[in-house]
Formats: sequence, C-alpha cells, structure tokens
Amino acid sequence: MTDPTPQTPHDPRPRVLSGMRPTGRLHLGNYMGALYNWVQLQHEFNCFFFIADLHALTTEYPDPKGIAGSTDQVALDFLAAGLDPKLCTLFVQQDVPAHAELNLLLGNIVPVPWLERVPTYKDQQEQLKEKDLATYGFLGYPLLQTADILLYQPRYVPVGKDQEAHVEITREVARRFNQLYPGSFTMAEGAAPWELEAVKTKARKLSGDPKKETFSPHELIAAAPQTKLKSAYGTHTILPEPEVLLTPSPKLPGIDGRKMSKSYKNTIMLSDPESEVRSKLKVMVTDPARVHRTDSGNPDVCPVFDLHKVFSTDETQQKAAEGCRSAGIGCIECKGWLTDAVVETLAPIQERRRHFERNPSLVEDIFHDGAIRARARAAETMYQVRSVMGLRQPRS
Amino acid sequence: MTDPTPQTPHDPRPRVLSGMRPTGRLHLGNYMGALYNWVQLQHEFNCFFFIADLHALTTEYPDPKGIAGSTDQVALDFLAAGLDPKLCTLFVQQDVPAHAELNLLLGNIVPVPWLERVPTYKDQQEQLKEKDLATYGFLGYPLLQTADILLYQPRYVPVGKDQEAHVEITREVARRFNQLYPGSFTMAEGAAPWELEAVKTKARKLSGDPKKETFSPHELIAAAPQTKLKSAYGTHTILPEPEVLLTPSPKLPGIDGRKMSKSYKNTIMLSDPESEVRSKLKVMVTDPARVHRTDSGNPDVCPVFDLHKVFSTDETQQKAAEGCRSAGIGCIECKGWLTDAVVETLAPIQERRRHFERNPSLVEDIFHDGAIRARARAAETMYQVRSVMGLRQPRS
Repeated sequence: MTDPTPQTPHDPRPRVLSGMRPTGRLHLGNYMGALYNWVQLQHEFNCFFFIADLHALTTEYPDPKGIAGSTDQVALDFLAAGLDPKLCTLFVQQDVPAHAELNLLLGNIVPVPWLERVPTYKDQQEQLKEKDLATYGFLGYPLLQTADILLYQPRYVPVGKDQEAHVEITREVARRFNQLYPGSFTMAEGAAPWELEAVKTKARKLSGDPKKETFSPHELIAAAPQTKLKSAYGTHTILPEPEVLLTPSPKLPGIDGRKMSKSYKNTIMLSDPESEVRSKLKVMVTDPARVHRTDSGNPDVCPVFDLHKVFSTDETQQKAAEGCRSAGIGCIECKGWLTDAVVETLAPIQERRRHFERNPSLVEDIFHDGAIRARARAAETMYQVRSVMGLRQPRS
Repeated sequence: MTDPTPQTPHDPRPRVLSGMRPTGRLHLGNYMGALYNWVQLQHEFNCFFFIADLHALTTEYPDPKGIAGSTDQVALDFLAAGLDPKLCTLFVQQDVPAHAELNLLLGNIVPVPWLERVPTYKDQQEQLKEKDLATYGFLGYPLLQTADILLYQPRYVPVGKDQEAHVEITREVARRFNQLYPGSFTMAEGAAPWELEAVKTKARKLSGDPKKETFSPHELIAAAPQTKLKSAYGTHTILPEPEVLLTPSPKLPGIDGRKMSKSYKNTIMLSDPESEVRSKLKVMVTDPARVHRTDSGNPDVCPVFDLHKVFSTDETQQKAAEGCRSAGIGCIECKGWLTDAVVETLAPIQERRRHFERNPSLVEDIFHDGAIRARARAAETMYQVRSVMGLRQPRS
C-alpha cells in the first residue's frame, strides 16, 4: 500500500469553501448574495468554490436532464463574475468522487433525527409537494453538504446571515467525528505534505517495523521534529469545525418587489443585455402609494430604491431619494439612473462572459484543472480521515 | 469531455456479483454458505467477488480499527478457499469509489419507507442494542448493497434460500431507475465497448453535430448497424434487474449445536490446525438422548451428523448412521471419522493459505489487479447511468 497523500501546492492562506447549486444562468440576486463576496474572498483566502450538481439531483431527480446545461451556465457565470482560477479553485462536485466517499463514511455516525430536525427538510417537502421528496437522498442533503465542506478542512464557510444555521449541523458532525475518532496527526496549515512522510519514516524506524503504515497519534508525535511538535502535529483535529464567515447579503428585490428568485420569474440576469435590463426595470414596481407623477414617494418602501442602495453611488442614491420625496423626479427618471448603475455593474461581467463563451475549451480547461486541484486536496483529507478511523487506505 | 468508457476485456459469460463482510478469519459456515459455491461459480460465470469493508462500518463505526485486519484475513481466505484471480475478479469495496458514487445517485430515487421496511433494519437495531444504529448509514445499508450489485450490471446474484428477500429491494430500485430514466443504449453482453464508440460516431454524423455527446436511445438505434440493432442496442435497460441464483446453504451447526457463527464462539475456522479441529469436535454436542455408550442414538437430531452430511462420503455417512442407531459405535469414533473428513477438506485450503501468507505481496497484487478490473467495469455502468440520467460525465 502506497501513501497517496498528494503534494498539493502549499498555500498558507486559511481555506474557504463554498458551493452553489446549478440553477442555470445566474441573476443579480445570486451575484450579490454569493459571487460578489466570493470575488473579494479569493484575494484573502485559499478558496475552493464548486458547482453542486449532486445537490441539484436531490430535488431534480424526476427530470435531471437540465442539470448538465445549468452547470455549464453557472461555470460561465462564475468566471464572468470575476472568479479567477489563478486565485481560487473552481470545480464541479461530480468531478470529485471523494464527496460521495466522505458522505458515505460520515453517514455512519449521523443519527437520522439530526437530519429530520433540519428546518428546511419539512419546509421543502411542503413547498415542493408535487415532487416526492420523502427520499433517502433528500433526507441526506444536509449530510452531503457537511461532507462537501469537511472534505476540504476549511477554516471558514462564507454564508449570509439567514444561512448561518446551515453550518451548524456540519459543526455537529465534525464534533462527533472528532469525539469518536480522536487523533490529531494532521498537519498544521503551515506544514507541507512531504513533512508528514518524513515523520512517518522516522516513526517506522522507532517502531522497528520498516513496512509499518498505520500510526497512532502518539507514535507520530514521538517521531515529529521537536520544533514542530505542537504547531504541526499535536494541535489539529482531523475535521476542524469550520467557522461561519458572515458575508453581506443585501436585500435584493426582483422587478415585482418580492425577493429576486428564479422561481418568481422576477429576475435580472447577469447575462441580460442592456435593452432587456432597461425594459425589465421600466416595469418594476415602486412605492405603491405614489400613484401620480406629482405624488411624493417614500424611498424606504420602494423596491427600486433597494436596488439603488446596492448598485448606485451615494450621490445618485441621495439625488434619487430627495427627488422621490419631493416629487422632483418621476419614477421613470429614477429607474433610468438605476438602470445606468446596473448596466455599469454588468458591463465587465458580460464582457468576461463573452470572452469565455467564445472560448469553451478555456472554461473546460479551468474546471478540469480545478477538479485536479480539488481532488488532490480532498485526497489529503480522506487520507487523514481513513487513518484516524483505522481504515485501510484504498489501492489507487 | 472525453468518453471515459474503459475497454474491459470481453468475457461472454453472464456476470455474477457477490460480496462478504470482513468479519476476520472465516469459518466452515462461511465457507459452505458462500465461498464453496463461489469457487464452483467462477468456472461458469464472469464473477466479481468483493470484501464489503464499507458495510462493516455501518455497525462497527464506534470502533472500526479491526476492519482493516479483518479485510486482510478474508482476502487470504478467499484465495485459500480456491477463488482464482485468473477466473474471477477479487477486490475490496473501498478500492472502488464508484460504490459510493452510485449509492449517492440511487439514494435520490429511493423512498425512505422502502428502507425502513427491510426486515433486518429493526431486527438488527434490537439485536445490537448496545450500539446506536439509528444512523443514516445503517438505515441506508440495503441501498448500499443495491449499489454494490447494480454497479456491475450482473445477471445473477448468488444467495442462499434464506437471503432471497435481500435481493428484492435491489430489483425494486432497478425497476424504479429504469422507469424514471428509460433508455436502452447499453450494450448487450456480446458487444465490445469500442462498438458503442463506432455507433456514436455514426450518430454524430447523422445529427450533423460533430461534437455531440448526448444521444437519445432513438438516435443510437438509428445509428447502429442493422444486424446488431436488436441484440446489441435496443434491448437492454441500463440497470437490468438481477436474478437470484439459488446456491446451496446446508445447515451447518457449530460445536454447541447452534448455527455456526462467530458471535456464538462455536466455530471451526478454515485456518484451524488439525489438532484444534480434533479437540473442538471432540467436545461437540451430540444427540442429547444418547447418554451412555450403550444407548442407541438418532443421527437425525445429532449436530455431528449434520456435519457428516456436508463433509463425509456417502459411505462414511451410512456407516456412522447405522453404528449410531445400533450403538455399534460410540460418539468418539463417529467424531473421529468426521474429523478426518473435515481435515481432508481443510488440507488444500490451508496449504493455499500458507502459500499466500508467505507471499503477502502476491495477495496485494491480486487485489490491486482486481480493483483495477472492478473499477473499469464499474466505470462502464457509471457512464451508462449518467448518460441515461442526462448527467454530464465527470472529468477524469
């Protein structure tokens, strides 16, 4: 049996993991709620961002034909939004079989009631009544999410305030794993994989068995170089509980005033051409009390102003709010300014999208390379997970 | 995206799939109930036999350290029993990640009540009360078993009469899969993988799209060579329902008269030396009514005679039965004859075991090679499963 610990390039930045379901082309709500934040994070953290095509199956299983195409669209939108494969790792969940493998291992330690208790379980079953969601896969989706996260041993999971609870079950499962399988010979953020190999070579010598492959944490700590003893080998549990990294998720209404969502058909897409954005925003609902041009309006209850707050400059926001309250401007004028701001936000995104649409093999290469990097990082975790559980390492 | 259909060497014999949990060294009960039959089957069928180490985790998760060692022992016993890697494919479940992948895909179409309804679910929870088996993994073990089987698209699953029901859920899941995802462009037993590639090339030409990767069954049938139309492309569903292949599972009592089982500590191990077999059988319980040497006995209720029926020649059986009924022989003599027969059965098994014990790298090579073959066969199924579901093929 060989040691399959792959040598992932060392990146000292704390790891971050997040994913998104392939829902097809993305809209402004997806962008501001996730992608916009991810683009900032990639400069500070070692980020792994993935398209969760296996999650789509938990609800789309009766007709999964659209998932592949949606995945391609989301891949384009990832790159269009400004995610840069030089700064972060972009991949598709199904390209990394270890998601399924860790999911299967962790399923053994997760009590069914933990899953039944997840609030979205019963909610979604109610909401999507036309689909039969009393399935094993749907019950297990918070577990799959947990495996997705823990597989990369991330320090942080970026989520909006409303999703904080979603990370809680991941932390619970990590705690249970670490209790059942105590051990901490995983490397510190700063240690390179070949260092572990050196420590194992030493541990083999100490044990007198040159073929020894399984080591207790004690044996590894004993074999570790003194200076690294605590920082690299004695301090990390195998599946550290990831922390929530709260990211802004501004209120983003669709053109009907409800939350922007594909299912409400009220979205502005990242790929909408200017004319489309203009005609969509032209009919967007406003403060319902402002019926005539001469009525004064209240920006605080106007969905158009909610979008101004996200996309317009402070100056434009002030101008729009004052003009609305004083009836100095009409809604058409106000929407015009908003459209300009939105179009300005979309311009670089759409330019990048066109570039990648013209070069599909470039997108393919980026996600192929991302899959290789993600698989290598996942293999490190799986190696540690199997070691601490006392399982054999699979033959490759 | 490349076509990852691997070219597994063509074997026209119908495929057979079976597995065994790694419980450590095997005993005569394991041998007669499974291995002995498998050794016969390998001459007639294209057999895949695996050690189900992932199944062991569903109950052993609180302390899984023993699974790796047990797997090694079962591997030795597979080979000792006479399974021949030239005739069949031997592998360890964890070496084939597609077991976890297909398990995850199939979980989406399996209603939770199907799993709760499996008789052993509640039984085992009762029996193993000291373990917490209200876990997602334990609930899902019949699904994992289903994935194990369907992953190899076998024609037959060899089981004893008492286990026939276990295959039923596998057939149910296969039916549901084929209903949800109708399609039948999988190849017939007699078609080689490169033939499918030729058909796809033709289908691409017919469609006018040289990069086309997804085809409807209709398109493939249209592109198939006429002579093969029905036999190779139009007749097979993606996950054929496997048939039960009833194999003998003779009544095999342990030395206390109860069913031979590791948990009763009443076993004769395949690796027990002759002296051990002799002393174990010497104290084996007999017809309780035969108290004195001069009492006549009844072979029909004597556990020792049950073993005679399995291991002794007809001649010896007759001699023993007559001697018992007439009090012509004592139990010691009867057991002596049985011991000779058992030792004779074990001799070639133990000789092979010693050979493989002395050559651990040979065992390693056999199971490594088996893993490669099993992965290649599993990849064909996964390719077809993802195609018919409309999922993208993962990047390799």
